[in-house]
Amino acid sequence: MVSGVSITRLNSSAESFNQQLDELLKWEAVSNLNVNQTVAEIIAQIRLHGDEALIKYTNQFDRLSVNSINELAISPEALQAALEQISPEQKQALIEAANRIRQYHEEQKSCSWQYAELDGTILGQQVTPLDRVGVYVPGGKAAYPSSVLMNVIPAKVAGVKEVIMVVPTPDDQVNSLVLAAAAIAGVDKVFRVGGAQAVAALAYGTATIPKVDKVVGPGNIYVATAKRMVFGQVGIDMIAGPSEILVVCDGQTNPDWIAMDLFSQAEHDEDAQAILISPDSSYLEAVERSINKLLPEMERAEIIRQSLSCRGALIQVTDIDEAIEITNRIAPEHLELSIENPEQYLPVIRHAGAIFMGRHTPEALGDYCAGPNHVLPTSGTARFSSPLGVYDFEKRSSIIHFSAKGATKAGQVASVLARGEGLTAHARSAEFRIDKQSMGE
Amino acid sequence: MVSGVSITRLNSSAESFNQQLDELLKWEAVSNLNVNQTVAEIIAQIRLHGDEALIKYTNQFDRLSVNSINELAISPEALQAALEQISPEQKQALIEAANRIRQYHEEQKSCSWQYAELDGTILGQQVTPLDRVGVYVPGGKAAYPSSVLMNVIPAKVAGVKEVIMVVPTPDDQVNSLVLAAAAIAGVDKVFRVGGAQAVAALAYGTATIPKVDKVVGPGNIYVATAKRMVFGQVGIDMIAGPSEILVVCDGQTNPDWIAMDLFSQAEHDEDAQAILISPDSSYLEAVERSINKLLPEMERAEIIRQSLSCRGALIQVTDIDEAIEITNRIAPEHLELSIENPEQYLPVIRHAGAIFMGRHTPEALGDYCAGPNHVLPTSGTARFSSPLGVYDFEKRSSIIHFSAKGATKAGQVASVLARGEGLTAHARSAEFRIDKQSMGE
Repeated sequence: MVSGVSITRLNSSAESFNQQLDELLKWEAVSNLNVNQTVAEIIAQIRLHGDEALIKYTNQFDRLSVNSINELAISPEALQAALEQISPEQKQALIEAANRIRQYHEEQKSCSWQYAELDGTILGQQVTPLDRVGVYVPGGKAAYPSSVLMNVIPAKVAGVKEVIMVVPTPDDQVNSLVLAAAAIAGVDKVFRVGGAQAVAALAYGTATIPKVDKVVGPGNIYVATAKRMVFGQVGIDMIAGPSEILVVCDGQTNPDWIAMDLFSQAEHDEDAQAILISPDSSYLEAVERSINKLLPEMERAEIIRQSLSCRGALIQVTDIDEAIEITNRIAPEHLELSIENPEQYLPVIRHAGAIFMGRHTPEALGDYCAGPNHVLPTSGTARFSSPLGVYDFEKRSSIIHFSAKGATKAGQVASVLARGEGLTAHARSAEFRIDKQSMGE
Repeated sequence: MVSGVSITRLNSSAESFNQQLDELLKWEAVSNLNVNQTVAEIIAQIRLHGDEALIKYTNQFDRLSVNSINELAISPEALQAALEQISPEQKQALIEAANRIRQYHEEQKSCSWQYAELDGTILGQQVTPLDRVGVYVPGGKAAYPSSVLMNVIPAKVAGVKEVIMVVPTPDDQVNSLVLAAAAIAGVDKVFRVGGAQAVAALAYGTATIPKVDKVVGPGNIYVATAKRMVFGQVGIDMIAGPSEILVVCDGQTNPDWIAMDLFSQAEHDEDAQAILISPDSSYLEAVERSINKLLPEMERAEIIRQSLSCRGALIQVTDIDEAIEITNRIAPEHLELSIENPEQYLPVIRHAGAIFMGRHTPEALGDYCAGPNHVLPTSGTARFSSPLGVYDFEKRSSIIHFSAKGATKAGQVASVLARGEGLTAHARSAEFRIDKQSMGE
């Protein structure tokens, strides 16, 4: 039996509110010395012994007994077979979700551009996709096919030629939904490896695992630590903190709906954070009643209860404007504006990973099939970072093509500045291109 | 007296070429345990004691004797005074460079977008600038005004309201060119602090230094280590390795020009890398002669000699196509295509930070006034990253607004997928929005 939830109540008019809010939001990822040492050792071994080390760690950590790396490759036929193995309803849902995600991400593609100056000088920027990307997909109990779609499709839309997926199969447990999602998303190669050893293999390459240019995808502390360590050798996506939702409600949405929206974050794990802000104190009470009413029915009730008790909150404010002010301070991963005419508040929302507008847009739709990415900045990092997108799989090269005339003009500017910095080779390199005859022009 | 340069010669047709090239390019940043501990301690002290610790460290490391943080602020008047203090020629050069940089970066601005689906559902992306950015500018001997322009202007073009610059003034040495550049670029506040303590103050804020959302700008090993450590608390730009140039030449450019272009990278520091590729072996010899002829004239001859001897190379290839192939493998920070009709090769160049095209575009113009940013991905990271740009000071929020009808359709897809992942609160949150009456529509 699950006991009731005691959820923090805050009031923005309280003198200590700012301090209480800071306390509530406080989150610092603990970096563990033991984990760091273990991961550093695993990376060193993979760099030194390649496939051999990868097999050894995989047998050890995933309790397998394979002898060759080929046993760890999943063939394209096996992916197609998985697609036929899942229910027609699931297959259809994956295809519809993939289509919506693809359509949205198509809008994110960048274009190369150039402009010419009067003297014939050309400046521009060339956009190209990354060559090869590694996608980490957790295995075992938290195996999420939606995560395959969200990480692979933007890479493919960007034009990445080769997407390598790694997914551990502890105790030989293969998740058909994950493989089916890989088939639909267009993954090029799949290997049944995981943990820090999989990240290291992707970053440095082995005889079998191709070396990639970027590693994306969620994982446990070992995976996150390995990603941090290989950063620079390859690109990485954000290292995510616990999931969060901030719901702003005017008090007119069915309280059961909002309670369930809060649950949908809280069920991820005990550290997840679900916060509701409303100017209507009786509504906050109604939602609290809904929480206590609905909680016992939930499969992951104990996780939800812990998350809401430790990190959840119901915050009363004077009005929606104040709610938006607090929102900008929190910079939430997920923001639900469950209010009338939410679009009027868009221009004043400065920081949020994704904004779910209106009463019919629960955050859960965004996790699966709305279209936008579900990989979003957590722990206030929406102040400076963005959802995973096509732009994460593209990079830009500056283009500079001076005409002889342009080089003469720019050369004089560069010469003055380079000499001001004491870099005379820079100055002389620019001066060589100055055409003395045309300097006066 | 400077002795001659013994520069590595490679030939792409040699059997061991690939291995030799790997050896040449090898670069791994050493992370130093002592530095790590020192920086961690400095960050902890700044978090704990704020301004007081900042004053203490600044007095200690920069050999100052200030008593109050106000003595470390540089007023807007002082910036304007610096602008009048430098030579008219320098002022004019800074203004022209700033104008060209601003004009180029204006092209990089992103726009918010939305689209509506048939059932009234709206999807989109909102682009907003970061609120506040910190720019680190090294002081002392390597004080580069160009670096101020290159880091500040993109932030201002993005719409960042407040740019805080920190620049150490060891032994009270203030660099007027740096302050003048700050005035021209539109820096909002300047503090005379540096090192890990300045990075920590920007990341966590003190009573006086405002907490920023992102820290950018180059620095020594302490600054780079501090940036790595505060990453997550704030955004950071790339941590740069040594500067590099790769020149591809068809043999028709004045060899003195190319020698000086190689010098312009090599003079940065002993670890800088300058490589020339040409199909013309007699041209490689001509450039080598120019190198030995011009070197004794150079102010930074000893640095150049060491850089070219240890990390430079002259590579002979069969043709320009092969040169481009090797270029893509190297993914250079700076690529000079000193060849006829360089634009024909643009479509096949996949990886380069900046591409300098034609005989009249020395890399040095890009460092100061061409327009594109001089902060570029080093050590092969152009495979997955981009020049610093306006996009680094913007972030995006996904916008999702389902109509009742749209939520009914999407809710069914989300429900199937959420149940497949065992996340029933997600499923029920979506199901609440399914309008049973209209399901068949």
